[in-house]
Amino acid sequence: MRTAGTTLTALRERAPLVHNITNLVAMDFTANLLLAAGASPVMAHAREELAEIVAAADAVTINIGTLSLSWVETMVEAARAASEAGRPWVLDPVGAGATGYRTESAARLVALGPTVIRGNGSEIMALADAASGASPHGVDSAVESVEALDAAFQLAQQSGACVAVTGAVDYVTDGVNMTAVANGVPLMGRITAMGCALSALVAGCLAVTHRPRDAVAHALAIAGVAAEIASEHAEGPGSLRWRLLDALYGMDAEDLTTRARIEG
Amino acid sequence: MRTAGTTLTALRERAPLVHNITNLVAMDFTANLLLAAGASPVMAHAREELAEIVAAADAVTINIGTLSLSWVETMVEAARAASEAGRPWVLDPVGAGATGYRTESAARLVALGPTVIRGNGSEIMALADAASGASPHGVDSAVESVEALDAAFQLAQQSGACVAVTGAVDYVTDGVNMTAVANGVPLMGRITAMGCALSALVAGCLAVTHRPRDAVAHALAIAGVAAEIASEHAEGPGSLRWRLLDALYGMDAEDLTTRARIEG
Amino acid sequence: MRTAGTTLTALRERAPLVHNITNLVAMDFTANLLLAAGASPVMAHAREELAEIVAAADAVTINIGTLSLSWVETMVEAARAASEAGRPWVLDPVGAGATGYRTESAARLVALGPTVIRGNGSEIMALADAASGASPHGVDSAVESVEALDAAFQLAQQSGACVAVTGAVDYVTDGVNMTAVANGVPLMGRITAMGCALSALVAGCLAVTHRPRDAVAHALAIAGVAAEIASEHAEGPGSLRWRLLDALYGMDAEDLTTRARIEG
Repeated sequence: MRTAGTTLTALRERAPLVHNITNLVAMDFTANLLLAAGASPVMAHAREELAEIVAAADAVTINIGTLSLSWVETMVEAARAASEAGRPWVLDPVGAGATGYRTESAARLVALGPTVIRGNGSEIMALADAASGASPHGVDSAVESVEALDAAFQLAQQSGACVAVTGAVDYVTDGVNMTAVANGVPLMGRITAMGCALSALVAGCLAVTHRPRDAVAHALAIAGVAAEIASEHAEGPGSLRWRLLDALYGMDAEDLTTRARIEG
Repeated sequence: MRTAGTTLTALRERAPLVHNITNLVAMDFTANLLLAAGASPVMAHAREELAEIVAAADAVTINIGTLSLSWVETMVEAARAASEAGRPWVLDPVGAGATGYRTESAARLVALGPTVIRGNGSEIMALADAASGASPHGVDSAVESVEALDAAFQLAQQSGACVAVTGAVDYVTDGVNMTAVANGVPLMGRITAMGCALSALVAGCLAVTHRPRDAVAHALAIAGVAAEIASEHAEGPGSLRWRLLDALYGMDAEDLTTRARIEG
Repeated sequence: MRTAGTTLTALRERAPLVHNITNLVAMDFTANLLLAAGASPVMAHAREELAEIVAAADAVTINIGTLSLSWVETMVEAARAASEAGRPWVLDPVGAGATGYRTESAARLVALGPTVIRGNGSEIMALADAASGASPHGVDSAVESVEALDAAFQLAQQSGACVAVTGAVDYVTDGVNMTAVANGVPLMGRITAMGCALSALVAGCLAVTHRPRDAVAHALAIAGVAAEIASEHAEGPGSLRWRLLDALYGMDAEDLTTRARIEG
């Protein structure tokens, strides 16, 4: 059976190239998380090179965090290129529901066939029902993941994507089955771009693991266990951030499999 | 009496949404500082969603650090929206005086009625007298805060904003009265975007404290005391940065009030 | 004789203003590395102020990591301004060879007369022979520095620039002579933007040291020795990053000269 540990080992051995069109806040931490996990990140958003970059990449992350007109066009083009080239790609719909423009842009990308959509509860609910009008309260926010379970199923069925809603417990569904991941620590929520970096790690795992639901669950367990190890000595969000990178880098694959709390 | 401690407690309890249009260097540290302090940061610069974001925000930060034509137009629009919606907003005129374009852009924003302007000595002097021609020497630079006292008063009177000039001692004036804050450590100057992050924290405090001069003084004391605690074990700017976030996160509100060196 | 230690001392005493047009991933770490080393960083990319910024700067870094049409035009303009004003400037051709657009854009900049070109083996080989078609595998990647020695000589002779190819051992050539620098630790490769930050440090050293080949070798030794000191207590890439900044800040100039492994 494929475990979180075998996925981590595959990441380290194959060092997949993960192409990220992500937000301006998340770039540094995302790249560092991918490198610590063994993947090879590239950030690129010029339309002049998109086709070549996507073709070379093993997986793609598209994150709308600091979207703008021109970046959204690039994202749409990258999503199309990834789908056409058969590259797995992850959509991170940051702030969907917070503004009409975000919800619309995320919905356009959903329609292009992401392999995985990863968001928090309010983002997934907003996407499942653009008309739900979730009240905007930042992008780090609001709804418990468990409250978005129905929305996650619905979105997975509508879109054909595997949908992950992360929170105290993470839920991953392909529209039929559900996997729950119960790793991680609450303090992760005080590190900016943590969710964005998780989405990129999901992309990395998609490049080395066939079933999307496994790739997502393993990515969330890998980061969650790293955070648990890190939090043993962390005294706040500042130390948690660098300790998480150290823990991820040094993590034993078998120990990870033991500590991973994946059900379903 | 409102103290720095009560403001910190209010930040943590109310977790105000702080909308930042800030520079590309500062985004990561700014978001992490706001999260460590208890606020809820959002970075967004698309004109398509500005009105909604500003309306949802409790306070706004506008920082011209890596300005460009299109970002300045966005900043102007956000400043107008914030003023019209009655949202407190902070202007950080990074590098004003270093180039004509910066001085002009900052002056345009000053004219739109910021609640607070926070800069270093040379930036405040450049804004108070655009014709003063302060010689450009980076954005982390030059003039002692005390040398810019007259300029700060003058700028406050001209603009109606509360003006903060930060340095070894920070001075905050509404054009009539002056508050001095003597917290912090010199090594803060070796962390990029420290001033930018302070401006965002000022915005956070404006959202939970009525009088702007108090909000500014409290924000500067909160960050300054966190830096003092952090510097007890820091061995350089690398460790000071993450220790400051840890200290800010773990800081006791009463202890903060005791350590805050606010006068006037 | 000029040593790495005298260059570090000069950096600290003169605090040269280093203007960076660099990529979105690298900005934070680059600015922090320059500050820790004693230089004064400024990030600016608006064409409206380029001439003033370049004129005020002591050295310029141009890094194509997250290039786009408008940023490339700005880079070309900054390169021209720097060459005309006699300012030393460093080209970091991130990902040259990975896409046609990158190779072309880097080649345009090479033609404008950089003082130094710093890249990894595959980037330097791609630039030396745009037709070589090095297969794209991320920007942190591939070829050993020693394999690119011939390409480095060739590129230096073609361009008139001093060329540095960094890796396990760093090689620096002006087209005639070669200097090798054998400091640093492999874990540096797991920190995003490490190479980009090195390029900026090279720019800083160019501002205080006459011979480009010395400036480059000293910059690489300074960062390499800092990484060696940092790695004594680092447990992964997370701690190596902040410890490197602390080590750089606290480094003794004489000790640096002793530890620098510069040959040729």
